[in-house]
Amino acid sequence: MDVQIVLGSISDKEIAKKAVDVLKEFGVEYDVTVASAHRTPERVENVIKEAHEKGAKVFIAIAGLAAHLPGVVASKTVKPVIGVPVDSNLDGIDALLSIAQMPSGIPVACVGIGRGDNAALLACEIIATKDETIQEKLRKYRGRMAEKIEHDANALGL
Amino acid sequence: MDVQIVLGSISDKEIAKKAVDVLKEFGVEYDVTVASAHRTPERVENVIKEAHEKGAKVFIAIAGLAAHLPGVVASKTVKPVIGVPVDSNLDGIDALLSIAQMPSGIPVACVGIGRGDNAALLACEIIATKDETIQEKLRKYRGRMAEKIEHDANALGL
Amino acid sequence: MDVQIVLGSISDKEIAKKAVDVLKEFGVEYDVTVASAHRTPERVENVIKEAHEKGAKVFIAIAGLAAHLPGVVASKTVKPVIGVPVDSNLDGIDALLSIAQMPSGIPVACVGIGRGDNAALLACEIIATKDETIQEKLRKYRGRMAEKIEHDANALGL
Amino acid sequence: MDVQIVLGSISDKEIAKKAVDVLKEFGVEYDVTVASAHRTPERVENVIKEAHEKGAKVFIAIAGLAAHLPGVVASKTVKPVIGVPVDSNLDGIDALLSIAQMPSGIPVACVGIGRGDNAALLACEIIATKDETIQEKLRKYRGRMAEKIEHDANALGL
Amino acid sequence: MDVQIVLGSISDKEIAKKAVDVLKEFGVEYDVTVASAHRTPERVENVIKEAHEKGAKVFIAIAGLAAHLPGVVASKTVKPVIGVPVDSNLDGIDALLSIAQMPSGIPVACVGIGRGDNAALLACEIIATKDETIQEKLRKYRGRMAEKIEHDANALGL
Amino acid sequence: MDVQIVLGSISDKEIAKKAVDVLKEFGVEYDVTVASAHRTPERVENVIKEAHEKGAKVFIAIAGLAAHLPGVVASKTVKPVIGVPVDSNLDGIDALLSIAQMPSGIPVACVGIGRGDNAALLACEIIATKDETIQEKLRKYRGRMAEKIEHDANALGL
Amino acid sequence: MDVQIVLGSISDKEIAKKAVDVLKEFGVEYDVTVASAHRTPERVENVIKEAHEKGAKVFIAIAGLAAHLPGVVASKTVKPVIGVPVDSNLDGIDALLSIAQMPSGIPVACVGIGRGDNAALLACEIIATKDETIQEKLRKYRGRMAEKIEHDANALGL
Amino acid sequence: MDVQIVLGSISDKEIAKKAVDVLKEFGVEYDVTVASAHRTPERVENVIKEAHEKGAKVFIAIAGLAAHLPGVVASKTVKPVIGVPVDSNLDGIDALLSIAQMPSGIPVACVGIGRGDNAALLACEIIATKDETIQEKLRKYRGRMAEKIEHDANALGL
Repeated sequence: MDVQIVLGSISDKEIAKKAVDVLKEFGVEYDVTVASAHRTPERVENVIKEAHEKGAKVFIAIAGLAAHLPGVVASKTVKPVIGVPVDSNLDGIDALLSIAQMPSGIPVACVGIGRGDNAALLACEIIATKDETIQEKLRKYRGRMAEKIEHDANALGL
Repeated sequence: MDVQIVLGSISDKEIAKKAVDVLKEFGVEYDVTVASAHRTPERVENVIKEAHEKGAKVFIAIAGLAAHLPGVVASKTVKPVIGVPVDSNLDGIDALLSIAQMPSGIPVACVGIGRGDNAALLACEIIATKDETIQEKLRKYRGRMAEKIEHDANALGL
Repeated sequence: MDVQIVLGSISDKEIAKKAVDVLKEFGVEYDVTVASAHRTPERVENVIKEAHEKGAKVFIAIAGLAAHLPGVVASKTVKPVIGVPVDSNLDGIDALLSIAQMPSGIPVACVGIGRGDNAALLACEIIATKDETIQEKLRKYRGRMAEKIEHDANALGL
Repeated sequence: MDVQIVLGSISDKEIAKKAVDVLKEFGVEYDVTVASAHRTPERVENVIKEAHEKGAKVFIAIAGLAAHLPGVVASKTVKPVIGVPVDSNLDGIDALLSIAQMPSGIPVACVGIGRGDNAALLACEIIATKDETIQEKLRKYRGRMAEKIEHDANALGL
Repeated sequence: MDVQIVLGSISDKEIAKKAVDVLKEFGVEYDVTVASAHRTPERVENVIKEAHEKGAKVFIAIAGLAAHLPGVVASKTVKPVIGVPVDSNLDGIDALLSIAQMPSGIPVACVGIGRGDNAALLACEIIATKDETIQEKLRKYRGRMAEKIEHDANALGL
Repeated sequence: MDVQIVLGSISDKEIAKKAVDVLKEFGVEYDVTVASAHRTPERVENVIKEAHEKGAKVFIAIAGLAAHLPGVVASKTVKPVIGVPVDSNLDGIDALLSIAQMPSGIPVACVGIGRGDNAALLACEIIATKDETIQEKLRKYRGRMAEKIEHDANALGL
Repeated sequence: MDVQIVLGSISDKEIAKKAVDVLKEFGVEYDVTVASAHRTPERVENVIKEAHEKGAKVFIAIAGLAAHLPGVVASKTVKPVIGVPVDSNLDGIDALLSIAQMPSGIPVACVGIGRGDNAALLACEIIATKDETIQEKLRKYRGRMAEKIEHDANALGL
Repeated sequence: MDVQIVLGSISDKEIAKKAVDVLKEFGVEYDVTVASAHRTPERVENVIKEAHEKGAKVFIAIAGLAAHLPGVVASKTVKPVIGVPVDSNLDGIDALLSIAQMPSGIPVACVGIGRGDNAALLACEIIATKDETIQEKLRKYRGRMAEKIEHDANALGL
């Protein structure tokens, strides 16, 4: 298993799905579960421990409000942790700052508000640093995006 | 020991001192230490455990940036936790939101940015709910504040 | 009566209900009423006075916009005052700052925007500092939350 | 006496002086004192009562942070209340929102952050609605500002 | 005619109606029209000139976005100008800052976002500084608000 | 004369100088003066009228706080108006929003906070749409910037 | 062809349409296409190159989120570039800052959030600096806006 | 060479130094240069191309204001790109949003404002996903941080 996804709450499911869809498309193995940094601190520890045992290379933590989950995960692993802020309130600016503004020493890789897809792509890029197959898939993914935009341009009709 | 104060970083010392000064003035016993939610998660757990053993009734957690310390403490105790946001960046709005916007189920009592004094006064108020002596001291403290303001008014000279 | 809840406006009722539901669940006695800091300053004073007579240990004040109610209550009691910001405009950031940024000397315990539930839990934690029964109930409440999350994890289906 | 100025704290003195200087220039009688909405709620009431007795037509309330003073004054008088937000923290946006975002029914006239001068000019404009002498002075004041700007233009040297 | 209301756009009509309703209730004479600071600068000048001729004592200017209308009106009269920010975008914070942050010398009395009612009440308070009848009506209006809140308290049912 | 620069206040001189320096470097003729939208509305009109007579093709308006100057200029000319927000308070976000958020129909070209240099470059780009000499100078200017950065890269020493 | 419009995403179509409608009304020739700064950087370069060949005088770039498109276009042309921030998240403040806060040397003319119409009007103003016909059309357009507002004033019915 | 660091401007040198110091400490090979996304778009392309040739596994891009550099780099590589926002203005919130809010498809890993150290640590974590030596060094680094905090706690003296 390569990527461990953790949701702070089941209400973040829609954003987790965006990540899962990308990982499936890239054929990257993942585990996904719910564990709240505040309500289930021990569960978070267990999830991390088991993920380590299963060989997880990257963590994706999804959370809203005072979004401590990515930071809590990062405090207990030296694997890269990607944080996805969720818009539960204040348009998600609270979650964005709670994830991005980590103190010196414990990094979290923050992506955009609600960007489960980009979290998964970043995870793929990290795995691809030593996996040419995924790197190739990433290039093709970008090719398809470019084609999609060319198609949009033709369909614009303005 | 009644109040356990935890600083996320020794750079928050000045704000912790405001809290300590108030607690001394009220004769409330306290312990104060440094423990980072991100850099020393186990130390935080130990601090909480020992504080419980020493009979701590209230926790004060002081932190800046993605200020997870108060929330992390709150996730491991059912004692009241008071969070003090520190202005390390963005005028402290990142810390304020990281502390105030806790999710349902795990409350933190957030005071103003840099307000170590108010955190201590709130701790005293909590202890005073069953301690008439402290309650009386709180009333006198307010009396002195009022006198100070009357004195200021006379000294204004405008 | 242990907890006095005050709403700045009847439009905050839904958030007050979240607090009431928690207090009922914990068997904590409460009073709840409407009193506006700006439109009925005298009524606020009377509510506080009567609450004191009924033995209130904690106040919960719920308000939006320039949310002065928690601060006004805090200025007239040395009991702990918990403030709940309401999102009436600007996503509630105006209310959050009006409650959290209290000046030196008069603390208010600010919880998250719309978090009536956490206000009540914090009130329970304060009361529980000398009431083992409530403390035990708090621990069980957390246990149920943890179970709920484990259940969510199993039901996730991603 | 026409204008009652109230400072929430003696630290706001510099901004109060800007107001006083304008009122002196216009020959408008004023009283100025310190009274904190939170630390001395009774003193605020007394200041308002005495101001009414002295015939105050307008109130100017100056405060920072969770700046409740203007709203508290407004809740106890039907005279116009002008609020001046002070930059104590967060560049004064907390005070600005605490003053501007008053709920329906109790208006406060909010001026810019730190704008004691404009508060006094607005007070003069209010008094001038039935006082031709002050109105004439206001027009001359504007004439002098315009001359000052013409002079600045000539001195620009770019 | 006592109060001249100006809308920056007909889309602000709903907020203007709140002001009109209050002025009608207080029996204060008003004129209301649309004039855009940016799209019809000359029309704004004419509206002000005619309002002066009709004896207007107070101006209320309602505008959203880069809300210059209140400031433009204030630059051409020494009568008190009340500005009402409208939420057209960014929750109205753009309009609030465009109105509240006037430079030294030209005051605008800013009320809350969308608060046409408070603008009218403030206008009444200004007129009432020399009109005992309106002052009495203001007191009664507050009495009715207080009764409404007492009624709400009884109807709360929590 | 090609570019009319207007400062809302002589305190914006430093930012105007950045614009003037660029225009001198490009050999573009300019006029620069001070005129406040709020304090000298007639002066602003006269400045625009005279600028039209002198053949001005572009306006640059520099202002802080509730920065109405660019919008007021734009309301009285169909020449392109470039607005430069000044940081007088709130880090300049008030001025930025007051300039950028113009309503439909009257555009202002907003540049970055304090960016007098970019305002002048944009003015040159506008003039250059039919002036090959200036276009060539713009390309060379960019070439020099690129060389400067290459030089910086070599001097970095990390 | 005079104006090249580029959308960062087909989801910005509605805002592009506002620009197109204005350009059609003014009889200004334009091209419109989709090209993403991030997903199709080469396509953006090609669009610019072809626009140059077709004689484009002004660029309009429309983008949301981390809206780099206007800046990327500006980095590759010395023609004036107008940026239109789109509200995809955070009410568009992210896009506004990403467009307005360009560094020294590469200007972008930022208009209001979602203001495709103003972008087109600004483009017309730029073209009109040497085209009396368009200038005349701009004056007439403003005349029609003024008439519309007069009509609104008569239809207000308050 | 493992990590390519790019500064948008030589003024970001101090923050780059924090990254360099960490990479040196971990014995990770790096290249560091200056290249502006806006002022030298071709240089950025060349830097990326050469970095690819030298075997770069991760990019760190440091930029302020409308901080497009990380996004521009990300648009031209499928290697992980870490963005470091710099506080040049608005406390760095403009740069933070310009980096974090990347659109779907092109991820950037955003760290805290000014956090060059965390960018380098994240780069090490990414490299360490397949390098046990670096992973071990990361664990030791955390151990030293924990010791430092224990030492701080003992030295606190409150």
